[in-house]
This record gives sequence, C-alpha cells and structure tokens, in this order.
Amino acid sequence: MTSPNSRHAHVVGLGLIGASVARAIAASDWSVTGSDQDRDTVRRATELEVISDETMHADTSLVVVATPAGAVARVARDVLSQLEDPDLIVTDVAGVKSSVIAGVDDSRFIGGHPMAGSEQRGIEASRADLFRGCTWVLTPTRATEAAHYSRLHGILRELGATVVAVSPDDHDRLVALASHVPHLLAGALMNEAALAAQEDAVLLQLAAGGFRDMTRIAAGDPSIWPDVLFENRSAVMQTLRSLEDRLATLRRALGEDRRDLISVDLQSASLARRQLPGRALSAHRLAYLRVGVTDQPGVLAAVTVAASDRAINIFDIEIAHGIEGRGGTLLLAVDAQQAEQFLDVLGTMGFSVTLDR
Amino acid sequence: MTSPNSRHAHVVGLGLIGASVARAIAASDWSVTGSDQDRDTVRRATELEVISDETMHADTSLVVVATPAGAVARVARDVLSQLEDPDLIVTDVAGVKSSVIAGVDDSRFIGGHPMAGSEQRGIEASRADLFRGCTWVLTPTRATEAAHYSRLHGILRELGATVVAVSPDDHDRLVALASHVPHLLAGALMNEAALAAQEDAVLLQLAAGGFRDMTRIAAGDPSIWPDVLFENRSAVMQTLRSLEDRLATLRRALGEDRRDLISVDLQSASLARRQLPGRALSAHRLAYLRVGVTDQPGVLAAVTVAASDRAINIFDIEIAHGIEGRGGTLLLAVDAQQAEQFLDVLGTMGFSVTLDR
Repeated sequence: MTSPNSRHAHVVGLGLIGASVARAIAASDWSVTGSDQDRDTVRRATELEVISDETMHADTSLVVVATPAGAVARVARDVLSQLEDPDLIVTDVAGVKSSVIAGVDDSRFIGGHPMAGSEQRGIEASRADLFRGCTWVLTPTRATEAAHYSRLHGILRELGATVVAVSPDDHDRLVALASHVPHLLAGALMNEAALAAQEDAVLLQLAAGGFRDMTRIAAGDPSIWPDVLFENRSAVMQTLRSLEDRLATLRRALGEDRRDLISVDLQSASLARRQLPGRALSAHRLAYLRVGVTDQPGVLAAVTVAASDRAINIFDIEIAHGIEGRGGTLLLAVDAQQAEQFLDVLGTMGFSVTLDR
Repeated sequence: MTSPNSRHAHVVGLGLIGASVARAIAASDWSVTGSDQDRDTVRRATELEVISDETMHADTSLVVVATPAGAVARVARDVLSQLEDPDLIVTDVAGVKSSVIAGVDDSRFIGGHPMAGSEQRGIEASRADLFRGCTWVLTPTRATEAAHYSRLHGILRELGATVVAVSPDDHDRLVALASHVPHLLAGALMNEAALAAQEDAVLLQLAAGGFRDMTRIAAGDPSIWPDVLFENRSAVMQTLRSLEDRLATLRRALGEDRRDLISVDLQSASLARRQLPGRALSAHRLAYLRVGVTDQPGVLAAVTVAASDRAINIFDIEIAHGIEGRGGTLLLAVDAQQAEQFLDVLGTMGFSVTLDR
C-alpha cells in the first residue's frame, strides 16, 4: 500500500490470538514487541521469539490489543494517549464490539475480530498461520478514516485473512447468533442429556453423530465464555428469546397436529444449510471499482458495510487522495462476477462509481 | 446359538435401512426375500441381488419390517397372522417404539431400532456393513420370551451391532433427546440465521465451525422427519419444553448478572461432553453370568433393561431351558470389569446369579 509508515508493531496480551498475531505479522516482515500481565508469558514469548522486546518502539505504527474484552477499551486509551502519531492504528481482537468501541473515542482506533480460534489456548498453541483463510471482521464507524482502514485491511490481507466490514451493533447481533447462542444451546442440550443419562446411562450410547455434532462446542474451555456472553448480553438475550419462541412454535405445531408447519420449517432449514458457503474461497477474477469520496464522515464505513451486507468480498482497498487533500478516490478490488452488482449498489447510495475492467 | 431355526429371512421395505439389513443378513449366510410397495425398488433389489425373491419362504424364521414408522404395526400384524410358526421372530427398525409396540400384540414381535443412518437414502445407498459398530436398540416387554430375544440378539451381533435393551417408553424419551429434538434445534438455529442473513449476508461468513457443527443435521432430507416427530410427539414436546426452560433460565441469568450460574452451567456441560464415550468399542475381556429365571413374564426385559440402564453391554445372551421345560438359565456375556457390578444389581433385583470366571 501507499503509506510510508514504519513496520514496528506492538501486541498487548500474548494468549493464543495475541501471540498468533505477533507471529503472523513478524512473518510478514514486521518487527514486533509485546507485553502481557503475566511475567511467565512474557518470558516465554521472548524465548519463542514471538516478540523481540517488551518495550514498545517509539515509531510503532500498529498496536493490536489482544486482552480479554473487558480490558480492551482501557488499554487502547492508554496506548492512544501514549503515542501521538496521527498515522498510528490501534485495533483489537475481542469477540464483542459495541461496548469496546463505545469506550474508545479516537479515529485511530478500528475495532476488529478475527473469526479464528482453536480448541487450545495460550501462547504455546499460537501459530503464524492461524488467520490464513479466516474471516477477520473490522467495525469501521463514521469516525474511521479511509486511509487508516485501507492500511489495516492491507495488513490483515497479508496475514491471509478475508476482511469484512460490519457495524459494531450488527457485529454483536451476528456473533450472538453465529457463535454465542450456539454455545449456550450446545451446553443446554448437553446438560439435559447428562441429567437423563443419570437415570438411563444407555442414552449416551444412543447419541448418534447428530447429537455429537451439536454438543461438540460445549466441550471447549468454559472459562472464556462468561465474559464474552456478558459483554454481549443484550444481543445474546434477544437471540435466546427468538429461539425460545421458535421452539415453542414447533412444540405447539406438534400438539396441534400441524404437520405442514413442521414440514415447511424443516425444508427451509435444509435448503439454507445446504446453501451455507464452504469455508474455502475459490480463486477469483478481480475487478476494480473507483469510488469518488468526499471527506464526509462515515463514507468508508458506508461503502465497506454495504459490501459485507451483500456478501461482496473486498479483496483490496486503497485510498487515493485528491491533490487538494480533500476528498479522493477509493479503489476497491472485488470479484469480477459481483462488480456490476456492487456498482449498482454504490450508485443507488449516491456515489460516483466507475468500473475498471 | 442353539436354535434349530431356518435361515430364511424376509424384509418388508427396501429403503436404505431395509436393503442394508437384507444385504447384511445375506452376508451372514441367510437366504433373504423381500418386498416393497414400489415396483422399481423391488426390480432394483433383485438386480442388485439384495433379495433372492419377492415371495416369503414358508419356512421363514425372521421378518424385519423396515417400512416408515406409521405402517409398521399393520405390516407386522399381517405377517404374524400369515405365519403361525411359534419360533418366528418379527422385528422392525422404526425410530419410535411405544406406538408401534402398542399396535402389535404378539410375543413373537420384538421392537428394534438400529442407530445407523447415512446422509443418503434408498436402496442404492444400502451397504452390508451399515450396522457394524452401531448400537441396535431392542425394546423387550413383559411379553417377550427369552429364547426369542436371545436369538434376535445373536443375529444382530452377527451383523456387527452392539445390542442394548430399553423399554419402549424409555426408548422414545431418549431418542427425543438424542435425536429428534436435536434435529428440530438445528433447524431452528439455521432458520434464525437464514432470516438474519437476508439482511446481513455477511452472517454466513461469520458462521464458524461451531455453527456449522450445530446445523449440519438440518441439511438432511426433511421428508423423513415429520412422521417420526409426530409418532413420538409426546416425548418430543416434553423435551422441547425442558430446553425452552433451560434457555429462559440462561437468559434470565444474563439479565440478572448471575455470572456464577452461567459458569456452573457451561462447566458441567463441558465436563459431560468430554466424558461422552467415543463410538469405537475397545476390545473387552468377557465374563459370564448365569441367571436363574422362571417363566414369569417380564424377566428377560427386566434383566436386559437393567444392564442398559447402567451402561453394561451384554455381548452375548443365551437361554438354557430346564429339562422340565419350565424356567431355565440365562447365560450373559458382559465386560469382565462390569461383571461384579451386574452381579450385585441382579442380586438386588432378587435373581439367583453366579459368575463364571
């Protein structure tokens, strides 16, 4: 990308995700410092050459806050007040975003959430390739500057991630449904079965592949979940409520002999599940869109979120400022098959767009 | 085993399970006839040599009814009135048992349910080894004769299945929890996500491994489910209700900031899931128990269900009648490590038991 910024990065919090970020960006030719509350972790990070030093370089251009969600805002504010460079980017990796964003009022902070993980935890399990092929959510807001976003997007693409932009509120609602509530559901089903198995141990022998699939995530380390569930509790409670309603509706349909309702429900679920895209991205032919943008706040967020809403993947994003320093052009690389659609979307939103072939 | 019975079997209904049963028992050196409502299926079954003929042999000693659950009782009654041999065994493979058993009043009928399946359906997907390593539930009742049960148990063991005995009501309650309700849950979660994805297509990109695991079974053929759900609706409705209650409790705990409750719940689920036994049975050293039994009804069911309740697997079961023709001895092969426990259980139940080492 175009920025003249240094390649000094700093990672706060060296657990599985933090240490993997450190390894991954070091592999992308960055010099990486890092810190952790736990002295043993810092010592181990140095031994494993996950970090070169504890002390943040004065010329640091990227800070990744990889602490538990509840600590992110405080740590980010500290870093932002410590480093005054306007080109600095601070981002985080927490699984909830609205509460974090609300706690950091600085255009240099962009919330992030890599959808990567592992059954394991801690620095020993960290890997430079953890983010290869993963979806990395960024949550730009009206305050987010296009140049910052574009630079962070480029860095994450270098780590092998697919970057999608979502508003902080949508992020929280969507992960409640895609991750937090499924975890609670798996736990509820497993606990219900464990209770029944106390009387009839044979139950566990009747638990076929479907039951195993549905409860697998309940086996994960339970200690990380209460924090994330409480940070995101309003969205989680709402989704739980919707599912309770769905189950009650199914139950009533059974009671009232409404076979048609059950059929329709199972059919639509089957169709939707079979359409769920695979994880692997196939090779794409890219097309480039040029979008004229003003310095109005929120333009970057509007454009990137509009793409994510329509499952249009932005492979590359660059900002070319006008010579007057005001406004400029966003250059967006998207799948050639989706370029026309995105052109229409952006046109409808009032942007001036052209398509390079 | 000791029976002088013929090795002529007949299978009614030649879908995935019926045709696989036909193939599996043919591979065990039976001569297998079979029928199906669908003429093309019968033709195909003959072509594939799944059956040797459509017409049931007069000397048939085993009939497997593999029709949809709703048709089993009628078909079984027809067969039982057609063949008067007291040594005949009729069994079925339906996923619900109470309603089936209630519809067949004959000591020669023993309800069954192999916990096997496939993403595929129909005769083309049938395989002789489908039941190898699977759990095959039998639901003996007070009317079930030990000699019949023992013979059927032996046949199913020859197919590679692990046989467990459960009462019809318990079976229905347990499969509601282990299979039917998980299917509805997976569907509800998938439909909720599909609805959200209409607005935010990016949701599907945020759906990580856990979500995929939890919705996988929703992809299955939806047409087979309404029947089974309605046949078992009382147990399914009760289990749905319990899960709704669990979700509401979690939701309230979130609202009332009861982190402790959420923690305890997730911890117990994690523990239970990690203790879920693997599917593979390890090699067992067997011990043999001899149980004196009278001709009182229900003895066989009591003994076998007591084993299943305690997750004690009966590897082999044989009945030796006394010379007077009344009462006799059940010879049970169980894992040597569980033999003492089962000895105590049966002793407590009032049986006279000895342990062969």
